[in-house]
Amino acid sequence: MEQKEVKFSLVFRDMWQSAGKYVPRVDQLVKVAPAIIEMGCFARVETNGGGFEQVNLLFGENPNKAVREWTKPFHEAGIQTHMLDRALNGLRMSPVPADVRKLFYKVKKAQGTDITRTFCGLNDVRNIIPSIGYAHDAGMISQCCLCITYSPIHTVEYYLDMAKKLIDAGCDEICIKDMAGIGRPVFLGKLVAGIKKIKDITIQYHSHAGPGFNMASILEVCKAGCDYVDVGMDPLSWGTGHADVISVQAMLKDAGFKVPEINMQAYMKVRSLIQEFMDDFLGLYISPKNRLMNSLLIGPGLPGGMMGSLMADLDTNLESINKYKAKRNLPFMTQDELLIKLFDEVAYVWPRVGYPCLVTPFSQYVKNLAMMNVIQLEKGKERWGMIADDIWDMILGKAGQLPGKLAPEIVEKAEREGRKFFTGNPQDNYPDQLEKYRQMMWEKKWETGQDDEELFEYAMHPAQYEAYKSGKAKADFLEDVKKRREAKEEVHMANDQTKVLTVDVNGQAYRVTVAFGDVNPSKLSAQNQPAAAAPAAQAPAGEGKEVLSPLEGKFFLTKSAQETPVKVGDKVNKGDVICYVEAMKTYNAIRAEFSGTITAICANSGDSVSEDDVLMKIL
Amino acid sequence: MEQKEVKFSLVFRDMWQSAGKYVPRVDQLVKVAPAIIEMGCFARVETNGGGFEQVNLLFGENPNKAVREWTKPFHEAGIQTHMLDRALNGLRMSPVPADVRKLFYKVKKAQGTDITRTFCGLNDVRNIIPSIGYAHDAGMISQCCLCITYSPIHTVEYYLDMAKKLIDAGCDEICIKDMAGIGRPVFLGKLVAGIKKIKDITIQYHSHAGPGFNMASILEVCKAGCDYVDVGMDPLSWGTGHADVISVQAMLKDAGFKVPEINMQAYMKVRSLIQEFMDDFLGLYISPKNRLMNSLLIGPGLPGGMMGSLMADLDTNLESINKYKAKRNLPFMTQDELLIKLFDEVAYVWPRVGYPCLVTPFSQYVKNLAMMNVIQLEKGKERWGMIADDIWDMILGKAGQLPGKLAPEIVEKAEREGRKFFTGNPQDNYPDQLEKYRQMMWEKKWETGQDDEELFEYAMHPAQYEAYKSGKAKADFLEDVKKRREAKEEVHMANDQTKVLTVDVNGQAYRVTVAFGDVNPSKLSAQNQPAAAAPAAQAPAGEGKEVLSPLEGKFFLTKSAQETPVKVGDKVNKGDVICYVEAMKTYNAIRAEFSGTITAICANSGDSVSEDDVLMKIL
Repeated sequence: MEQKEVKFSLVFRDMWQSAGKYVPRVDQLVKVAPAIIEMGCFARVETNGGGFEQVNLLFGENPNKAVREWTKPFHEAGIQTHMLDRALNGLRMSPVPADVRKLFYKVKKAQGTDITRTFCGLNDVRNIIPSIGYAHDAGMISQCCLCITYSPIHTVEYYLDMAKKLIDAGCDEICIKDMAGIGRPVFLGKLVAGIKKIKDITIQYHSHAGPGFNMASILEVCKAGCDYVDVGMDPLSWGTGHADVISVQAMLKDAGFKVPEINMQAYMKVRSLIQEFMDDFLGLYISPKNRLMNSLLIGPGLPGGMMGSLMADLDTNLESINKYKAKRNLPFMTQDELLIKLFDEVAYVWPRVGYPCLVTPFSQYVKNLAMMNVIQLEKGKERWGMIADDIWDMILGKAGQLPGKLAPEIVEKAEREGRKFFTGNPQDNYPDQLEKYRQMMWEKKWETGQDDEELFEYAMHPAQYEAYKSGKAKADFLEDVKKRREAKEEVHMANDQTKVLTVDVNGQAYRVTVAFGDVNPSKLSAQNQPAAAAPAAQAPAGEGKEVLSPLEGKFFLTKSAQETPVKVGDKVNKGDVICYVEAMKTYNAIRAEFSGTITAICANSGDSVSEDDVLMKIL
Repeated sequence: MEQKEVKFSLVFRDMWQSAGKYVPRVDQLVKVAPAIIEMGCFARVETNGGGFEQVNLLFGENPNKAVREWTKPFHEAGIQTHMLDRALNGLRMSPVPADVRKLFYKVKKAQGTDITRTFCGLNDVRNIIPSIGYAHDAGMISQCCLCITYSPIHTVEYYLDMAKKLIDAGCDEICIKDMAGIGRPVFLGKLVAGIKKIKDITIQYHSHAGPGFNMASILEVCKAGCDYVDVGMDPLSWGTGHADVISVQAMLKDAGFKVPEINMQAYMKVRSLIQEFMDDFLGLYISPKNRLMNSLLIGPGLPGGMMGSLMADLDTNLESINKYKAKRNLPFMTQDELLIKLFDEVAYVWPRVGYPCLVTPFSQYVKNLAMMNVIQLEKGKERWGMIADDIWDMILGKAGQLPGKLAPEIVEKAEREGRKFFTGNPQDNYPDQLEKYRQMMWEKKWETGQDDEELFEYAMHPAQYEAYKSGKAKADFLEDVKKRREAKEEVHMANDQTKVLTVDVNGQAYRVTVAFGDVNPSKLSAQNQPAAAAPAAQAPAGEGKEVLSPLEGKFFLTKSAQETPVKVGDKVNKGDVICYVEAMKTYNAIRAEFSGTITAICANSGDSVSEDDVLMKIL
């Protein structure tokens, strides 16, 4: 019998982004490309997409240059390059006008990306299908995703139905995007076999290692006919990353598949370059927790990469809950009790908001809703007291159709608050903008660039592009790297480069550590001084009714530079958003409860506020 | 169709020992047992065996008390307990007389262990089969292991042949002991199916997560009819540990197996107790590296748990190699180059020493041989220049029959050095000793204990038992815990509890960190002082011929307290072992090259020595 062939794709972009915030700089990418090629085992490499372009702008570097230089060596070696795109959201986290989406594919193809992998976190094919046409118009291979989650409605039949729609719409390939790694192996095998029955279409399996299923899933999907498997490599494989190519190759080879050999000399070369990049600056943004596997989130179905921020949220909210309990002489809650309640509440919340796939940002939404509910319930209040605007948009259908049905309690709440459901095509809410950006560039005397690539970057990431052009992005980035490096060096110094003396000062004994080396003393002092006193100049509290913070978090007057903050003396109408309290990365809009004039703003943007703290006064 | 049932065993003992050195104390074990029972998903628990009893002695605690108290609640709950035993080596790392082995099973059964899992690292059934009879005589269930490794001779047929021998010899169950986790999933599925064809015998699959194969392996062996799967749990699952029960349960449930539900409330309770024990003292012995998955060792076939010590060895030896190269103006070697050479050399060495299973101690032997060869070759010398006595014992057949054939170059070397091959039953080299120990206890007025359990512990671990009885074990343990805790606190203090001043001392500026809190200044000073000067009082170098160190390592006059160290003035004969140089955990015996009198000992036990350093002089 002829051996079934399985090919590998190194998801180099995702390897970095599932470990930390940044991807390597273009000089680093160009350095590592030849060694990746030398490994001899990759038919494809994920070069860009997702947050890649935005990250380049955050570096203060031109993503167009990066993509062109980084894809070039792979082309010359006959290796296909692919990128991730978020369908309606393009390369950002919010919807993108259709004309910008079209230009996106033209630009990326011209820059050297062969395949676009399109996904919608709600699995709404209306968001995905236009991308097939855009990709084809640009000459790209269109690979469409089934985002895998695990729920009673996400059955094999559900996914086969979705695959059929995408295949009928003309996509070239299907990606099984198991982004939380919670797809069950046998389930995924059935799914791949089912798709192959619909059509003998190329299938690529993408997974993350976190909960531990993915090696078994890889074996099952390959047995069912999967053609390409996404892999990672040391020291960024496993944990929240991907299965290591060494393990995948060995497993499949033993199972009788035709798989390429790995040039281990080259593997070790790539490995040490990755380490070199991490030692340079990328490691400063990688949490060691992301190198760990984690099964705890399988129950609630949340992605493993969320564990770090979830535990941080838990600590903050536990403090707030226990403050409440202390006041009332109630027994304290432990972190584990809160964690169990949170998991149980996720199980309550998720079906009721229509089972969105548990992938960014929807996984955060579900987790935040559950956390808010738990806090409210612990404090003797009702569920659903606090739903952020972004979450409402998802609930109301503005991001696409939810896979499941909303619970009556949610529908009633929406109606009670006068919120309108949207059943149209989400794209229709976002009219074309390209000419607006072209005009703005003309006014600023900025070039639109080769293949209009500069115009594209500006229209896709306006704020970041402006920060890139002004040099602010680079300055901010370098400053942040410097700060993190110093913080690390201080620890290092404290551990290794200190000498300790015992010194008697006016009769009191001190252990005195003398630090030699290139540490800035003022820096070290600042680090070790008591927490800075609260900013002195708060706006004086005037007359009027108090606007109270409904939750613990950080106070902000606006959530982006585009908004204009309110100021004392401003007239506001009932329902106007007057400020935000950010908690768990969500900006909760605070609205005026009646019309009037702001007489006082009682906190500074960025201040931490507790529940029931006075934020403003309105008269 | 009736669902095939799969049951779970929590390998609580191995969870700790594959993460670090110690297992919990008896008070901790007794505390966690009810919550483990409450989880409701375990048919079995691995309570003891392996290093468990020895670790208890190292604590200065009585292992007999620990095993009795810890197995009791499981019995009452109808959960079977099992233990690991090393066949010929019993519960230690060196061969055990037959009478002590027999008593071992009687004692452990009386203490409440139901199942003994017997393995031989060489898969020599002559070492295993007697244990079946001993276990049955004691009323225990005898589970015999196939130690899984990956080589051209370790075929499915090889293992089926071994399984047949064990089944014919009357074992009750078979354990597929995939201790490095490098068994390939499809291979293991074929193996289990094959065993079930020989006899419908109970099969338990034991694996480690390290290289990433094990979830796929669990699925394959269960499809082939495996009855029990060993699992771990958070925060000690994955990494060098085991698959988490949450993931295994979810995967198998989806695959159609009948599996028990997990009480997640109880899971969280056990989880926080494990964390509590780690925070108490156990975490002081757990390397964070052991929490990581690692695929790099799949190529050479070494177990993942070896990575930490391997990288440490690499650093030391790289320094030595580059010192050599510096002297000769040769280009330096990088760590990666050395690592690749080491892996390639393992691939050269392993077949030539007869493919012992890559499990402790044989994995260390193979790695050490390869490392020595690489060093010798880099320095322009021959392979096999330095083979430690323990390794010779394995090569000569004293530990059992090697699975593969020795290479002619090894056989010739053995003959050239007059070393005798041993083809008999290894047990025959170790005559009964129980009466000797009974006599010693009588002389010391020590009780032999209930069911002779004290006699057993003494005969199994003589040195550790004496240290336990004298109180030295407990004192040493507490001192070590204290030292580690202080080291950790110092880092903590340096990070968090310091204030920095800038101080001008006689015109020179110092950054001075003042540390408050309960840190012992002398301790801190000692920690931070320059490396202590070499001990002043070295024996003066006398006349005579120099005995040179053949390698870099640590000098020791003896390798155990039982040996008597040589001293200046001693007469030695050619070939006598006069001292050791320890490198990579192996004590390399240094022998006198001619007969004479020791006139000088030029290093202190524990000193680091370089290659060609003078160790002694003999006249």
